[in-house]
Amino acid sequence: MAEEVILLDVWASPFGMRARIALREKGVEFDMREEDLSNKSPLLLKMNPVNKQIPVLVHNGKPVCESLLLVQYIDETWVRESPLLPSDPYERARARFWADYVDKRHEMTVQIFPVGRTVWQSMGEAQEAAKKEYIECLKVLEGELGDKAYFGGERFGYADVSLIPFYSWFCALETLADSNIVEEFPKMASWAKRCMQRESVAKSLPDQHKLRDYIMEHRKKLQAQ
Amino acid sequence: MAEEVILLDVWASPFGMRARIALREKGVEFDMREEDLSNKSPLLLKMNPVNKQIPVLVHNGKPVCESLLLVQYIDETWVRESPLLPSDPYERARARFWADYVDKRHEMTVQIFPVGRTVWQSMGEAQEAAKKEYIECLKVLEGELGDKAYFGGERFGYADVSLIPFYSWFCALETLADSNIVEEFPKMASWAKRCMQRESVAKSLPDQHKLRDYIMEHRKKLQAQ
Repeated sequence: MAEEVILLDVWASPFGMRARIALREKGVEFDMREEDLSNKSPLLLKMNPVNKQIPVLVHNGKPVCESLLLVQYIDETWVRESPLLPSDPYERARARFWADYVDKRHEMTVQIFPVGRTVWQSMGEAQEAAKKEYIECLKVLEGELGDKAYFGGERFGYADVSLIPFYSWFCALETLADSNIVEEFPKMASWAKRCMQRESVAKSLPDQHKLRDYIMEHRKKLQAQ
Repeated sequence: MAEEVILLDVWASPFGMRARIALREKGVEFDMREEDLSNKSPLLLKMNPVNKQIPVLVHNGKPVCESLLLVQYIDETWVRESPLLPSDPYERARARFWADYVDKRHEMTVQIFPVGRTVWQSMGEAQEAAKKEYIECLKVLEGELGDKAYFGGERFGYADVSLIPFYSWFCALETLADSNIVEEFPKMASWAKRCMQRESVAKSLPDQHKLRDYIMEHRKKLQAQ
């Protein structure tokens, strides 16, 4: 049977990027449909009536929602290519822990974009607090990465798929945070470069400068309000 | 090899209850160690240095953190007894979606206890808003349950393990919310009764009245502050 794989997504969304990377790791052809979040499509509202959020994977007419569940679904459905989760239950739990980490650490702002959202949307004191929180988060991740090539060890896997999309936001965040995150976290920086060499990642992450311009534009609109 | 299974937990925690139910479904003997959250044990701080939260499962010296990851770990480690997650990837994604639902729906208050926490800790307008949110959440769950015996269909599974601990909070919440949640949501009420007939659940959930007294006591302390 010919497979129909549709991804309801927004180009700038790090959550959407997770799905794109996973599908490309598996070599799955998919039809990415750009959503306008201010005017959501009837298909999105029908496929994700509970949260009404992207990304949604519609596989042969059936919807899967929530980016991390989506990556796990992709891993469990297309099992032959590039296994993303390790086979050992303990290693699986660890991979899931770090994939959840960025989302959970910043529950207060997780709805659209954790950590970064506060840095680019807020001003003054709130921005300073968010920046500190953001740096704290990177410190923990830098420590966990240590001298490993990837979060799970020698192989690109689930935690990497979940975390690398946030790399594309670094450039914009650095402009706002007035700091050089890449220099301060050399291990994360090498890891990001390593990930970016994979075709699945390079094809799924937007250009950093295009993203920065988009974020700055959005920020201006917020400041004008 | 003799297995050493330690659960760092707090008796009133719905997140801890998830772990207890899953272990009992699998027939795993475990040593539950009650933590004092105002004076966390060195073992807890060592085993969960990132979040410092319960529950933590320490299996042969190795820690697994985050209640939902813990239930999945238990399901993947002790595979012979009572499979909790369905074998079909699509059904797995659905089970995970509903298990996450209660946690995610209330990101703002998720740190200690989603939904309910706001109802019992807040006063006045905030309490009214939290109550509405809580009722909305139950409505969605009632709709999803429909005429099924369990969230996944005919069998008690992952989503049920994740949601049933909140049942033990109903009694206290009803006193505070001045409403009869059980009468308003008859499908959820029958489902909860069905779950409570399982030994794994009955043994893992504390007495509702004991819990209500504990919550009311805690609330009084907060009001006095």
